[in-house]
Amino acid sequence: LISLPNPCDLLLSSDSLVEGVHFTKELFSPYDIGWKSSAVNISDMAAMAADPLYMLVNISLPKSLENKDSWLLEFYRGLCDCNDKHGSVKVIGGDLTGSLRDIFISVSIIGKADARGVIFRSSARAGQFIAVSGKFGNSNSYLNSLKAGLEERSSNPEDEVYFLRPRPRLLESKKILELNDSSRVALMDSSDGLAQALFEIAEQSKVCIEIDFNAIPKDPHVSLNQALYGGEDYELVASLDKVPTNFTILGRTLEASNSKEVYVYDKKSKQKLKKNEIYRHF
Amino acid sequence: LISLPNPCDLLLSSDSLVEGVHFTKELFSPYDIGWKSSAVNISDMAAMAADPLYMLVNISLPKSLENKDSWLLEFYRGLCDCNDKHGSVKVIGGDLTGSLRDIFISVSIIGKADARGVIFRSSARAGQFIAVSGKFGNSNSYLNSLKAGLEERSSNPEDEVYFLRPRPRLLESKKILELNDSSRVALMDSSDGLAQALFEIAEQSKVCIEIDFNAIPKDPHVSLNQALYGGEDYELVASLDKVPTNFTILGRTLEASNSKEVYVYDKKSKQKLKKNEIYRHF
Repeated sequence: LISLPNPCDLLLSSDSLVEGVHFTKELFSPYDIGWKSSAVNISDMAAMAADPLYMLVNISLPKSLENKDSWLLEFYRGLCDCNDKHGSVKVIGGDLTGSLRDIFISVSIIGKADARGVIFRSSARAGQFIAVSGKFGNSNSYLNSLKAGLEERSSNPEDEVYFLRPRPRLLESKKILELNDSSRVALMDSSDGLAQALFEIAEQSKVCIEIDFNAIPKDPHVSLNQALYGGEDYELVASLDKVPTNFTILGRTLEASNSKEVYVYDKKSKQKLKKNEIYRHF
Repeated sequence: LISLPNPCDLLLSSDSLVEGVHFTKELFSPYDIGWKSSAVNISDMAAMAADPLYMLVNISLPKSLENKDSWLLEFYRGLCDCNDKHGSVKVIGGDLTGSLRDIFISVSIIGKADARGVIFRSSARAGQFIAVSGKFGNSNSYLNSLKAGLEERSSNPEDEVYFLRPRPRLLESKKILELNDSSRVALMDSSDGLAQALFEIAEQSKVCIEIDFNAIPKDPHVSLNQALYGGEDYELVASLDKVPTNFTILGRTLEASNSKEVYVYDKKSKQKLKKNEIYRHF
């Protein structure tokens, strides 16, 4: 039961984390899974510049899992640590069931729209800046180093932070609202990759996006492909008029000559991003 | 984004349905799974006499599942059929992901509290009637006939309806509010069995419950054990002052001599219900 004393706009969103798809027991501790279950959902709120308030947490654990109680305690320690660091999001319910073989987590999050407005993916206009928070590809770099040999984890500590302890960009989304009219901002998180976020904004807003591949913030050990197509970075990708400090400008939005066909491409090489490289978690 | 023009109380609830635990592909069509995913969540709203409004639907499908598109279409046909029959509940979001081996469904439901109040499990008082909607054990009878031999389904058509097409008792819960003060009603659905619902009301409200085993509404082919401990009937179990027509009175609530230890027992035999018979789906 949640009481809303004033008329308001609520935003709801839901994300699942599935064993063998989004995480494995070998690579993620229960604490890691809990943190990430919170982070990916709070990141959805950040992408709408909303204030996360409540969570429903559904967990299905296989009958074969040993020490279910301590697994749940560690999971909730991770989830609540992330919740507490991002506006004290409260768990108000959920469901705990068995499963046949795999762990399945499903979190729904309820947030309050910022009084200055809600940000949608479809609000980009031609002539705006494309800007991003943070940097890209570290999470994918960590995953690739794992794939190369389960024992040989990436030596870059930032890779591990990006992969295991993503930090939703709530404050960064608020900075966007401080400088811009919400109706003139399109915003997404990069959970499915930077390229995917750019495509989504282009398609929903019916604009073309021209970026400079060289401007994409990334560490030296991260490849351009990892930065473009690697997912799970949970950075913000925005089309807006005024760029907050700490954001990096990647390029501009352009009028689409044909609204049915929009492109995302590199300014210098004119190379178009490939559309079919949908991010795969494992 | 949902806009709430007036101050109001929202009720949120979430239930998972997991392959191999709550359903199997052999026994349930995608339509059946969709219907049940809606019904179990709307039933949670009925147990609080709330008006269901919105749903978030998370689905994880194994990579090996053939014809995913038609599976999803049939699932949503079942889910929406049940939604439309119970106040036009709208699906406003969710998540579709892969899974390694099993199908996982997780639905969150958002409802509006009835202006006359919210019903909790903890509001029973000594001296009230214990009354129930419908009848019990048909779902378990169907499940048992399946277990006896997968080919030999129960010949009783009502068993199949209870098992595959449960009907949440929304209207029945409203009838309770028409006759009673919401602060003097305790209510649960019998998804985990009649006995479990009685225990829950007794423990949350700190009352003893005296019922007449012979008064439990059940079909002749259903055993008392099936009616008491078989789950998934989604009937309403209430402690209240005034009993609506179409409800059956099973017994009364009594002052508990020791609030730490409450009992549910048969009036004639004084036989106490067993507490450890937690309902298992499969």
